[in-house]
Amino acid sequence: MNKLYGIKALAFDAYGTVFDVHSVVALANKMYPGKGEELSRLWRSKQMEYMFLRTVMGRYIPHGENNEAALIYAMKFLKLNGGIKERALLINAYETLELFDDAKRTIPMLSNFKKSILSVGTPALIRRLVENAGIESNFEELLSVDEVKVYKPHPRTYQLIIDKLQLLRQEVGFVTSNYYDVIGAKAFGFQAIWINRNNVIPDELGLCPNIELKSMDLMPNIFG
Amino acid sequence: MNKLYGIKALAFDAYGTVFDVHSVVALANKMYPGKGEELSRLWRSKQMEYMFLRTVMGRYIPHGENNEAALIYAMKFLKLNGGIKERALLINAYETLELFDDAKRTIPMLSNFKKSILSVGTPALIRRLVENAGIESNFEELLSVDEVKVYKPHPRTYQLIIDKLQLLRQEVGFVTSNYYDVIGAKAFGFQAIWINRNNVIPDELGLCPNIELKSMDLMPNIFG
Repeated sequence: MNKLYGIKALAFDAYGTVFDVHSVVALANKMYPGKGEELSRLWRSKQMEYMFLRTVMGRYIPHGENNEAALIYAMKFLKLNGGIKERALLINAYETLELFDDAKRTIPMLSNFKKSILSVGTPALIRRLVENAGIESNFEELLSVDEVKVYKPHPRTYQLIIDKLQLLRQEVGFVTSNYYDVIGAKAFGFQAIWINRNNVIPDELGLCPNIELKSMDLMPNIFG
Repeated sequence: MNKLYGIKALAFDAYGTVFDVHSVVALANKMYPGKGEELSRLWRSKQMEYMFLRTVMGRYIPHGENNEAALIYAMKFLKLNGGIKERALLINAYETLELFDDAKRTIPMLSNFKKSILSVGTPALIRRLVENAGIESNFEELLSVDEVKVYKPHPRTYQLIIDKLQLLRQEVGFVTSNYYDVIGAKAFGFQAIWINRNNVIPDELGLCPNIELKSMDLMPNIFG
């Protein structure tokens, strides 16, 4: 296996990397039998599309609002009945997502590194996620793109890590399952660690991760 | 029906609005029986995703290259055999897309307006499309985002129209079938005319078109 050298800090993406965005499927299936998975997938993909579009247009809104807009679209598209009350239930589940098992096992083991989270969530959303999962003591910084009012993969978001930690870009290992975030982090100059749990194929965006892992369980062995 | 007032010029999106991006399906189905539609859809959606992502990252590449990257991804994802030769055939079809019938009938009838195209294609790609379809005499300007090195819906792309035509923003009617482009044009200050041929639901991005039409055939009647 490849080894990564010179890393002093690890920054983690939250949604989809540390937290399983599809842990809302169970609730969604209770509310809309047989439709939970489709709703979760469309909700997530619209969230991301809206983040990219709003960043391109210079019309940032906080992730909570963007998330609700994506949910409204997904419910309309799938012709699911529901209003404020149903959305509130689903959004509450989204704000208390479950940890991936490998993240739960691995993050506390990576004690040689300063650890932080850089998320598209607002500070309040990130704090709620992390505290609900009981992992807050692992992180020195919880960083939110809300501070710069653009979404990832805009370079200004990754700069937040450098500004807080005062490290060189190549001293940061950026851990993410989202390929657009892999590319954004790599383009910025971080060492990109792609957690590819579902064995998806990479996008053709002209850059690659420094290392690809099927699980975070492999992380303790990658540092040279 | 709503009427639009004060419009002096009409700017048209090309891909998906004047030209049918899915006219490659026939060739794709010949090459990959039964897979043409799926290939065309995934190719198109990846094209757009890559445009947005590259704009967010500040890593613009010309549409021809981006288009080929999206095709490479789509073929890999669908496990379709093919290399440079197969891609060249499909890309050639994409560079000579068919006109939508309603566009063919309507554009020549809109003789009271200065007409232009604003496309994500490079100048050479736009010229080839328009000349292949025999509609070049209808347009005073063929404008390409390549001049500003960002993709739509970045406001700098819509500014190209203002710079060339020297009109006020609200004097421009922007005609597009792509909802992200509706929103981008509206956010910029144009009057947005959404050609919604397939009766899709609008995205939840906080802005609406000035008018929604099921076909360009209705366009001659919308001006007050």
